[in-house]
Amino acid sequence: MTTSSGSGEDSLIARYFKPLAIDPGAFGLVDDAAILKTSGEDIVVKTDAIVEGVHFLPDDPPETVARKALRVNLSDLAAKGADPAGFVLTLALRRAEDAWLAPFARALGEDAAQFRCPLLGGDTVSTPGPMMISIAALGRVPAGKMVPRSGAKAGDRVIVSGTIGDASLGLDILKEGAAAAALAGDAAAREMLIARYRIPQPRNALALALREHASAAMDVSDGLAGDFSKLCAASGVSARIDLPCIPLSAATAGLLERGIASMAALISAGDDYEIVCTVPEARCADFAEAARQAGVAVTSIGTILAGSEAPRFLDEQGRELALKVLSYSHF
Amino acid sequence: MTTSSGSGEDSLIARYFKPLAIDPGAFGLVDDAAILKTSGEDIVVKTDAIVEGVHFLPDDPPETVARKALRVNLSDLAAKGADPAGFVLTLALRRAEDAWLAPFARALGEDAAQFRCPLLGGDTVSTPGPMMISIAALGRVPAGKMVPRSGAKAGDRVIVSGTIGDASLGLDILKEGAAAAALAGDAAAREMLIARYRIPQPRNALALALREHASAAMDVSDGLAGDFSKLCAASGVSARIDLPCIPLSAATAGLLERGIASMAALISAGDDYEIVCTVPEARCADFAEAARQAGVAVTSIGTILAGSEAPRFLDEQGRELALKVLSYSHF
Repeated sequence: MTTSSGSGEDSLIARYFKPLAIDPGAFGLVDDAAILKTSGEDIVVKTDAIVEGVHFLPDDPPETVARKALRVNLSDLAAKGADPAGFVLTLALRRAEDAWLAPFARALGEDAAQFRCPLLGGDTVSTPGPMMISIAALGRVPAGKMVPRSGAKAGDRVIVSGTIGDASLGLDILKEGAAAAALAGDAAAREMLIARYRIPQPRNALALALREHASAAMDVSDGLAGDFSKLCAASGVSARIDLPCIPLSAATAGLLERGIASMAALISAGDDYEIVCTVPEARCADFAEAARQAGVAVTSIGTILAGSEAPRFLDEQGRELALKVLSYSHF
Repeated sequence: MTTSSGSGEDSLIARYFKPLAIDPGAFGLVDDAAILKTSGEDIVVKTDAIVEGVHFLPDDPPETVARKALRVNLSDLAAKGADPAGFVLTLALRRAEDAWLAPFARALGEDAAQFRCPLLGGDTVSTPGPMMISIAALGRVPAGKMVPRSGAKAGDRVIVSGTIGDASLGLDILKEGAAAAALAGDAAAREMLIARYRIPQPRNALALALREHASAAMDVSDGLAGDFSKLCAASGVSARIDLPCIPLSAATAGLLERGIASMAALISAGDDYEIVCTVPEARCADFAEAARQAGVAVTSIGTILAGSEAPRFLDEQGRELALKVLSYSHF
């Protein structure tokens, strides 16, 4: 985090980010670049950025902004079956404010330690615009073992981790939408949903199970319906998804029942950071057991079908849900 | 470049960036992440961002913005003795405009091909603020062979590539400063200096020579004086730099002679993207020959001394140049 910097940036980096650079390959952030040692494995590379006002709210706590910035990338590594190896950070700030940077760096360091994904380097730049945090995360998989989007086969089960739709309702609450009013008397539910928006729970514990058993996987970041449609397109298959099987938290299920949330919205909204994968029928029991050992809830929601049409999402009467907007788009 | 995207972003990516994803590890940008194959070498990781209004001007051509975004990172890989392996891109845009994106992507693809640094993936996000392009570049060096900042030893020669200070005068011309008026009649000099600001010439051809012969190296991006002082600090050494030896282009030397530029400003200004390195006396002839074969001009400008004081910059009378601002700082 040193080469595009002068003394002001250098002291900022030294104060807040050097303590995070505990990996020997980071050289304490005093060199121009970092090193990742290898031994024949594949390095998985992923970059995702979050922008103030787009991916997080201006008054989100710096701690949750830091965690979200790293975790959206960890989620992709998990989906690919990769173990985190380290990350580099680009931080575009209007000002270098201790009151914001100190908790940001502390939370980032905690997550880096928890997910064993050390800070390797970065760049801090000033911008007159909104804050932006761009992270490039590196992971390791045994050679040839990355779980692709393109491996789903007819007959595979479709499996999703965690619960779907919570984050979109958390955002709705933060924006004082209908969910906020509906949950006015339930602080615990409100807080859970907000936390699901602000602090993704990347499923890195599932990486080994995925690379051992899944035929295809991706993380669900822009809505289950749209993201899973991309997986089907990449695999050249279709699918049938049973909407009643989609795992929902109690809070989200309650809002769905009361008509505050709709299934179409829940499966088209972003920020889930769960994993959708396909597993051959014969591997499903082993996958379920591996997921149980990893401590990650997984739910079977449908079946891969031969064909090139978009996957169909069917309600309990077998009627197809009409989806207008499959996923969030930035443009 | 797919996971944080919806249909608008997807078609933008398909149109402009898929043609650049020619590396098999990029999976044509249709997967969530990219793969870098390894075989025991070290992977060098570097990230640098450029921001509109800070690192490039709003009316800089999209082609030069693209080249600068990639080349500032290539310059770091070169300084570390690493061969480019690939890069990921974060593009924060106000709008997705064909008139800007088409030439941007074309130039980026040309540079990726020229420097053998393929696009591996990325993320495109919308921002209401200034454009920002953040690139994380990956390189390869034989295990343990990265050229550090910290290896300079007393007695080593200090060597710099190319010429120093041109880019700062190019920026001055673009801002209608004194250099613009002084060179009103010399379009060729003006264009050369502007090109030095807009299109860095990373010295990747020098990577092999550096890892074979240099004891320490870094790229000069924030001013020779400040950057070289950091190298000395990291190495625990001092140095004597002979200002008359610092390589200048004819245009810059002319402006210096006429008092339009000062040596203090030239060695404190940013955007050179040259390499400063230290080479043991006994390896200097071999290094010079390797640089000649690589087609990169290199110049010996001083000597590493024992001690912990900041390096001294001496004029032809042996007087020390007083430097107030060693380098550019973002904060």
